[in-house]
Amino acid sequence: MSWDEVDESVCPIARSLSVVGDRWTLLILRELSMGSTKFDEIQAQTGMSSFLLSTRLKRLEADGVIERVPYSDRPLRYEYVATDKGKELDPVLLALRGWGMRWGKYRKNEPPAVNMVLKRTGETIDADWVPGKADTPFTFDLCDATVGRKFAAERKGRAAAFRAGRRASASKSE
Amino acid sequence: MSWDEVDESVCPIARSLSVVGDRWTLLILRELSMGSTKFDEIQAQTGMSSFLLSTRLKRLEADGVIERVPYSDRPLRYEYVATDKGKELDPVLLALRGWGMRWGKYRKNEPPAVNMVLKRTGETIDADWVPGKADTPFTFDLCDATVGRKFAAERKGRAAAFRAGRRASASKSE
Repeated sequence: MSWDEVDESVCPIARSLSVVGDRWTLLILRELSMGSTKFDEIQAQTGMSSFLLSTRLKRLEADGVIERVPYSDRPLRYEYVATDKGKELDPVLLALRGWGMRWGKYRKNEPPAVNMVLKRTGETIDADWVPGKADTPFTFDLCDATVGRKFAAERKGRAAAFRAGRRASASKSE
Repeated sequence: MSWDEVDESVCPIARSLSVVGDRWTLLILRELSMGSTKFDEIQAQTGMSSFLLSTRLKRLEADGVIERVPYSDRPLRYEYVATDKGKELDPVLLALRGWGMRWGKYRKNEPPAVNMVLKRTGETIDADWVPGKADTPFTFDLCDATVGRKFAAERKGRAAAFRAGRRASASKSE
C-alpha cells in the first residue's frame, strides 16, 4: 500500500496520517502555534534542512493546513500561519503533549516545558486535562502559554547555533 | 538536529514524536486497537514491508509501547499487544480520527469507517466528541466498535491481496 492508497482509505485516521503522519510536519505545526512563523525560525527550531522544510511547507499549503502571508513588501517575504483546518490539529498536539508529559523521562517535579492556562477559566492545562464541550474544537488560541525557563534556554541555544552555522557557511562561500 | 537530540528536548511534544512521530507507527497502533495483533495481519492492513514492520515493532517494544505475547507454543508464535503506555496513545488516534472526519474528503452523510460508542453511556463517538473526566485517560477499551460496511470491505480486500501476493511469491521461489 502506498501513501496515495492510504489517502483513499475510508479510515479517517489513515486519511489524517496521509497529511500529517510525519514528525516534521507536527513539529512545524508546533512551531506555528508557538509563534515561530518565519522560514528561518522554523528551520532553527526543528533542525530541518532547507529543502525538507520547503517541501513540507509546500505540501501543507497544498493540503490547506497552512497559508503563506506576506509580512514584508520589499523584499517580498512571507510568514506561515495555520488555517482553521491546521489549527484543528491542535488536539493532536495536545494529546501528544499529554502523553509525553505522562510517559517521557522527566525528573520528578520538573516544571512543564510550556505552562498553558485556559483563558476562559484560568485552569492549568496539565497532562490529564481534556477540553470540555465549551472549548471544542480545541485550539491553542484558547490558551495563554508561557515558555518555561529550561525550554526557553533550549530554544535560544538552537536559534544561536542556527545563526552561527549560517555565518560559517556564508564565510566559506565567500 | 537529529532525532536523538529531539528525544532530549524538554518539549513533551518533541519527545512523543521521537517515539510515535511516524505514520506507520500510528497505523500499527490503530491495527492493535482493532484487534489485528499478528504480524501478518498488521502487514496486510498497513501494507508495510516485512523489514519495515519488524523494525518498527522492535522499536515500539524497546520503547515499552507494545509487548510480544506468545499465542502458540509449537511452533512458537507471538502476537503484539499495546501496553498501558501504548493504550494511552489512543487519545492521539482519537484526535486524528476526529480531524480526519471533519476535514477529510468524504461524501455527504457517508457513514463512519468505524462506529464507536462509549460503553459507559452509550453515546456515539463522533468527530467532535471529547472524553469527559470520567473517561480520562481515554482508551479505545472504553468503546464498543463496529467496523462499517465500506471499511470492512476495504480491509477484506487488503487481506485477500496480501494472501494472493504471498502465494505468488511462494510459487515463484519453488
